[in-house]
Amino acid sequence: MEPVLFYGVPHGCSFGSIVALEWLEQPYRLCRIEMLKQPWDALYAKVNPLFLTPTLLLEDGEPLTESQAILQHLAARSREAGLGFAQGGREFDRLNEMLAYLNTDFFAAFGPLWILYEKQGLNGVQQELLRQLGREAVEQGCAHLDGLLAEREWLLGERRSLADAYFSGLARWISYHRLFDPEQAYPHLARHMRRLQADPGVQFAEAVERGENPAGAGGFRGHVTLEALRPRLVA
Amino acid sequence: MEPVLFYGVPHGCSFGSIVALEWLEQPYRLCRIEMLKQPWDALYAKVNPLFLTPTLLLEDGEPLTESQAILQHLAARSREAGLGFAQGGREFDRLNEMLAYLNTDFFAAFGPLWILYEKQGLNGVQQELLRQLGREAVEQGCAHLDGLLAEREWLLGERRSLADAYFSGLARWISYHRLFDPEQAYPHLARHMRRLQADPGVQFAEAVERGENPAGAGGFRGHVTLEALRPRLVA
Repeated sequence: MEPVLFYGVPHGCSFGSIVALEWLEQPYRLCRIEMLKQPWDALYAKVNPLFLTPTLLLEDGEPLTESQAILQHLAARSREAGLGFAQGGREFDRLNEMLAYLNTDFFAAFGPLWILYEKQGLNGVQQELLRQLGREAVEQGCAHLDGLLAEREWLLGERRSLADAYFSGLARWISYHRLFDPEQAYPHLARHMRRLQADPGVQFAEAVERGENPAGAGGFRGHVTLEALRPRLVA
Repeated sequence: MEPVLFYGVPHGCSFGSIVALEWLEQPYRLCRIEMLKQPWDALYAKVNPLFLTPTLLLEDGEPLTESQAILQHLAARSREAGLGFAQGGREFDRLNEMLAYLNTDFFAAFGPLWILYEKQGLNGVQQELLRQLGREAVEQGCAHLDGLLAEREWLLGERRSLADAYFSGLARWISYHRLFDPEQAYPHLARHMRRLQADPGVQFAEAVERGENPAGAGGFRGHVTLEALRPRLVA
């Protein structure tokens, strides 16, 4: 079977890996994981013992976790698509640098806001601290990216890369948490977000996240359930 | 000139990149950055506009930021040392996966504790929230790593890799924040931490961090000041 991407909803950062698969036009399937559902399906522990998404189930039945590792794996398969780069070159370094920045600093900036979203029993003072810490960190990250995008079309330069695919998933969190209007505060970043929102791969991922079953641009072979994968996972 | 690693003190995660350079036996220099000193030296903004460490100044004068990108760059130079792996292989995937886990989830687990350490004016309720969030997240991360290390010698298996070099820098934070005694709670993790503490590359990095000027195992060509690098940075 084709590789299967386990993607988490709602608001998952798996979104970027779905966009990457669409851009790369590789055959793949999707398996939907409801992240707020408790208790978790014990079968998923065989895919990801930390109960995180995304995970990519490879053809040989081995699961690969972590967005960055998944994107680098896809990039290594698809250098001819111009979205990833050969190990050892400067473009390889620049892609790794941007993915690491997005996956650490920029991702973590939203951390306090997700705790606020998920954690029960916080009092008003605690909620205010989390909101303040999140807003400060996200603003700093947006200012950094806005500065970069003032001088280039895409995150790495003149061409789109897997960094843009990954960013498309995180960008949605800015409006979700209603922190500020990026059009006013970060016009170059806002331009990039509008471009990504108009991208067919991003629109596909949004339709998937809403629970629709769009056709995609060529590689998508449909959804599969966790239960249907049981024979591959317990083998 | 050899590549120059800008490393941050105190308690920097640059530590792992110093260990990696020692293990790889590549020629390099070090430049020390005092992370708590304010205002920052404006010259460092040319190296890292976000005022973060580590950064690796490459031979051609280009700075490369982010621990993961630096480690992957070093790995690409040194596949013969057995510490990094060829793009496209399963070991390449596993190294990326472990580095990403350490650099995102495990690193971010300490985030609330660093905010507690650095931020002025927090009240008792806020301090307690940050300590609780940090402890819970670090415990979860340590339990995960302890489970892995119950079945393998090093983080990726039977041989040391750059994931162990990077982990050696983060492992120190467990005792620094006095969260728990890893010997009691996570014996396999504690065994790995003891092994790393006895490693010559780790001992070298500790001596560097203390402000000494150790010889190293071969590649270290000494410290250089930020000011001495000015001609390369403004070029």
